[in-house]
Amino acid sequence: MTHDAASPTPASPGSALRLRLLLPEGAVGPGKIALLEAIRHTGTISGAARSLDMSFRRAWLLIDTMNAMFREPVVKATVGGKSGGGAELTAVGHELVERFRAIEAAARDIAAPHLARLDELAVPCADTGKTQDGDT
Amino acid sequence: MTHDAASPTPASPGSALRLRLLLPEGAVGPGKIALLEAIRHTGTISGAARSLDMSFRRAWLLIDTMNAMFREPVVKATVGGKSGGGAELTAVGHELVERFRAIEAAARDIAAPHLARLDELAVPCADTGKTQDGDT
Repeated sequence: MTHDAASPTPASPGSALRLRLLLPEGAVGPGKIALLEAIRHTGTISGAARSLDMSFRRAWLLIDTMNAMFREPVVKATVGGKSGGGAELTAVGHELVERFRAIEAAARDIAAPHLARLDELAVPCADTGKTQDGDT
Repeated sequence: MTHDAASPTPASPGSALRLRLLLPEGAVGPGKIALLEAIRHTGTISGAARSLDMSFRRAWLLIDTMNAMFREPVVKATVGGKSGGGAELTAVGHELVERFRAIEAAARDIAAPHLARLDELAVPCADTGKTQDGDT
């Protein structure tokens, strides 16, 4: 089972599509992409982790994992400025986010009529607060 | 981390797209879909499990989970015939498989140029035999 703060919230009570890119040295899904976006937004790893309700340690590990998946890092440290340094996306990091979101948006358009039909066939949400993550 | 016999095999050494449908009462991904296809092919839960190198217990639990996600079951028992009974997909089960595979095929077409570019940016596979499953 996974814990992923960035699972898409299905339009209540509808179904949703979630995707993951399997790269040669690991997978990138909505959790890692949300972390990159949060770094872009907050300018620090600690701020990004906080905004996603994630530990600093977990954020750091995810970034380290992603940096090792690409020939160049996706996140780099910034030095100076009024906050005394932080983190920002590299060109590769920006490109990863943009391509992931482009695939996701197009795939969701394609999936929409299928998901609408599956919604009709599905048992509605029992609102038990359980997560949407399954492992298969 | 997950164990999923049906993870797509990326075109070596390329990247691949994997998707999951988040329905109100649970997720359906390539593992559950492969199990349904194997039941369609083999006509029994035990044969399907064997063909996916999965325990009968796990196959049964996945089917039970899926049956509980829809207003009607996705798999039903068959009685009689030379083999003395087995399992087959219901209309809902067939529709779920067809819609999942339709979304997947279209999404992979969309993703192809993006994945080709990310392949250029990615560290190539170290061929360590590790799985492609990540949790974010």
